[in-house]
Amino acid sequence: MSHALSVPGVLPGHRWLPSGQSSLTGPLLDLYRRVDRMFVGWAAEWGAGDYLFPPFLSARDLAGVDYLRSFPHLATFPVALDPADENLLEFTRGDVPDARGRVRLTATTPVLDVLTPAACYHFYVAFRGEQLEGPRYVTTRATCFRRETHYAPLARQSSFSMREIVCLGTADEVKAFLEDGRSRVARALDAIGLGVAWETATDPFFRPRQNPKHLAQRLDPLKTEMMAGGLAIGSVNLHRSYFGEAFQIRRDGRDASSGCIAFGVERWLHAIVACFGPDPAGWPSLEAV
Amino acid sequence: MSHALSVPGVLPGHRWLPSGQSSLTGPLLDLYRRVDRMFVGWAAEWGAGDYLFPPFLSARDLAGVDYLRSFPHLATFPVALDPADENLLEFTRGDVPDARGRVRLTATTPVLDVLTPAACYHFYVAFRGEQLEGPRYVTTRATCFRRETHYAPLARQSSFSMREIVCLGTADEVKAFLEDGRSRVARALDAIGLGVAWETATDPFFRPRQNPKHLAQRLDPLKTEMMAGGLAIGSVNLHRSYFGEAFQIRRDGRDASSGCIAFGVERWLHAIVACFGPDPAGWPSLEAV
Repeated sequence: MSHALSVPGVLPGHRWLPSGQSSLTGPLLDLYRRVDRMFVGWAAEWGAGDYLFPPFLSARDLAGVDYLRSFPHLATFPVALDPADENLLEFTRGDVPDARGRVRLTATTPVLDVLTPAACYHFYVAFRGEQLEGPRYVTTRATCFRRETHYAPLARQSSFSMREIVCLGTADEVKAFLEDGRSRVARALDAIGLGVAWETATDPFFRPRQNPKHLAQRLDPLKTEMMAGGLAIGSVNLHRSYFGEAFQIRRDGRDASSGCIAFGVERWLHAIVACFGPDPAGWPSLEAV
Repeated sequence: MSHALSVPGVLPGHRWLPSGQSSLTGPLLDLYRRVDRMFVGWAAEWGAGDYLFPPFLSARDLAGVDYLRSFPHLATFPVALDPADENLLEFTRGDVPDARGRVRLTATTPVLDVLTPAACYHFYVAFRGEQLEGPRYVTTRATCFRRETHYAPLARQSSFSMREIVCLGTADEVKAFLEDGRSRVARALDAIGLGVAWETATDPFFRPRQNPKHLAQRLDPLKTEMMAGGLAIGSVNLHRSYFGEAFQIRRDGRDASSGCIAFGVERWLHAIVACFGPDPAGWPSLEAV
């Protein structure tokens, strides 16, 4: 993997924060928008409607897919203080934060939500209980949150932008979507001149060897990643009827199948800068690819 | 205040979530983008550079403005589980979440950050220690988080989109910016046909009567809100040299002054729908206003 961006401040318009997150401005923010506009253009080829989802997903909604038991190490929870006056007063006594920058929380309200771990979960919640009359194509870009053991600018962040194009439908409809999607992306990568290797992968389960879902994924791969210089900048994912069953979404008399094509927007920036250099004059326009 | 939107599902493309947040699609998402494009157009009249900031602000960075002591009741903290294997194992035992949808957290990592409470804080952190050669105009749209005692669709949300146009400079430069800004917004509101009353206001401090900053704001108002049908859809704010001093930003041999014009994007949607009705055909284009 390229370490071209591991030195903070090397890239104009980029600021790297100790929380493992980036701020963007100038040409780099323009590139971010061009990259996402390219994805939206691909989504439009399937007539995919665009959605803007909020940052929280309810833990109850994720219970049906056992998210928190499968990925407890990745989750970030939004937590607020109990609003009782004496509790807030206790919180404000002493140093807030302390000398090491740590906030000592006093009593908190019940934790009901998770900060979005992956963009497409919002769709299954939104479409719960629906009978689909035909294949449904949708897209969204969401800020996603993942705790990791280490972070690297644009390449591995505690929060990042994920654009997804999702299909819900019959098994054949989803299969066709993912095949077309992979071809579409490959054609664009050729046009851009960005070299990518396609590799099968598994999801990063907690205690993978103890998890039957991980074993199932290894025996029958469902995820193919687009690897650019050792970094996965996107993936093509078949969920079979996993979400359709969990959220009672039906298609053609059965639990709907689903699949998604997912892109890590900041990782695309990383790959483009690693490939074309830090000078914006050398970056591809990404129009009509 | 209009309660036209208090019935969930009444507005096509809007979905209201128990967390006090909205998802948007279709014409309502188009309107959201047109509204924000209008704000960006105004920002461009000052040559303001656009920024994309991440969701976290470090508690240490906010300590200089005593944020957590002034607004502990509004804050939401991102919290993750301690990654030790036995801690995660303990977390995954039993119901996650429980029957009431609550997540019982086991040991957590130190809390170092706050979910963005207001967009413009990011700028003062980013420009810390700078000597400004002239007035600086900048803009950003950020997802902001505020815990409240109750929520209402588009009008009062636990997370929402805030667009800000900010000026840092001398006291006179900031004063001129805020006066021009208020005129610019008033002219656009006239063109759109959206009636707004301008009212002085104070920030929602914890225990306001015990807070000298609240008293100072009451004696010498720094905040003017744009009230549409009882709902503040934006505000014009003078910070004097409060942030310049806290973040050592200097202009013309002194601590820089700053001021911002802030817009709640979802509240603009609320005001437009309340004024022009739920049919998208009746909504203003917002181009060239």
